[in-house]
Amino acid sequence: MTTVDNGVNVQALLDAREALKAAPEAAQFTWRAASKWENGVHSTTSVQKFFGLGQEQQHRAETVFSADHPEVFAAEDQGITPIEYLLVGLAGCLTAGVASVAQNRGIQLRSVEATVEGNHDIRGILGVDSDVRNGYNDIKVTFTIDADASKEEIEALVAQSQKRSAVYDALTNPTDVTVEVA
Amino acid sequence: MTTVDNGVNVQALLDAREALKAAPEAAQFTWRAASKWENGVHSTTSVQKFFGLGQEQQHRAETVFSADHPEVFAAEDQGITPIEYLLVGLAGCLTAGVASVAQNRGIQLRSVEATVEGNHDIRGILGVDSDVRNGYNDIKVTFTIDADASKEEIEALVAQSQKRSAVYDALTNPTDVTVEVA
Repeated sequence: MTTVDNGVNVQALLDAREALKAAPEAAQFTWRAASKWENGVHSTTSVQKFFGLGQEQQHRAETVFSADHPEVFAAEDQGITPIEYLLVGLAGCLTAGVASVAQNRGIQLRSVEATVEGNHDIRGILGVDSDVRNGYNDIKVTFTIDADASKEEIEALVAQSQKRSAVYDALTNPTDVTVEVA
Repeated sequence: MTTVDNGVNVQALLDAREALKAAPEAAQFTWRAASKWENGVHSTTSVQKFFGLGQEQQHRAETVFSADHPEVFAAEDQGITPIEYLLVGLAGCLTAGVASVAQNRGIQLRSVEATVEGNHDIRGILGVDSDVRNGYNDIKVTFTIDADASKEEIEALVAQSQKRSAVYDALTNPTDVTVEVA
């Protein structure tokens, strides 16, 4: 019997699945970010604390992200654009899923790469045409995977990752977002 | 006449709006990200190049983002979770909008801060209950803004930012996402 090790502790995830069946309240997480306007369309957003498993939690470190617009939008390009962060999240989520599902199915991964492309008609956000939406028209993710598995098994890994992906769901289905002034 | 300067070149944006009315093909942007699996559920995603205004463009610098899961998920927490990147994008987008709209309306901003909270029932992604969605249940953004304006004017700034926000639209409305294996 070969030892497959993709670095994912699948047993812990399966144990969590069982534990949360009996304790749904522990499964209620709140993820948080705190942003600060710097200048122009440049802002910084920090992420560290979250809530889950019934108590306050935190990442080992605080991470601060810059968002800005590129110079072609007459801005200073001190960070990627806000909408590009959605592609970062999507790539990370689907890739984590591929690794987890591969571990669970006993498939050794050697490399997993993905390119993500989001098509965006900026006439929406600029107010040129009210029939053009503000967000992406569509997004395409292309995986290149080297693994001890057939093409069909690799495609099945990606399909299962997509089926359980938090970010894929968040982008393909609507979420209620409330925006308030304190 | 007072001089309002939030650091946003609104004239350039208004000029772009006019120019793109006559050249809709220039408004077709493609934003891109390239990710690489590192180990476990840890991946890195780089962002630099994009397409727009009819040609290849790039950010001044390449930025690399780490995504991972926290230690309570039996992972190594080498970066924020993929779904937290959505909150980073949302905060950055709405904040950029507030600054732009304030500039256009002649309102001087002194500070703009926002907290973003996303409620997430992780029973979805863990496969505990197929009736629970994978993504966020809901997201709440709370702005604290200090500006030379009334409460009503500040609320109107935020409302207009929301109306033109690419990320707000991407989260509240569905987008077609295609996932393929090369």
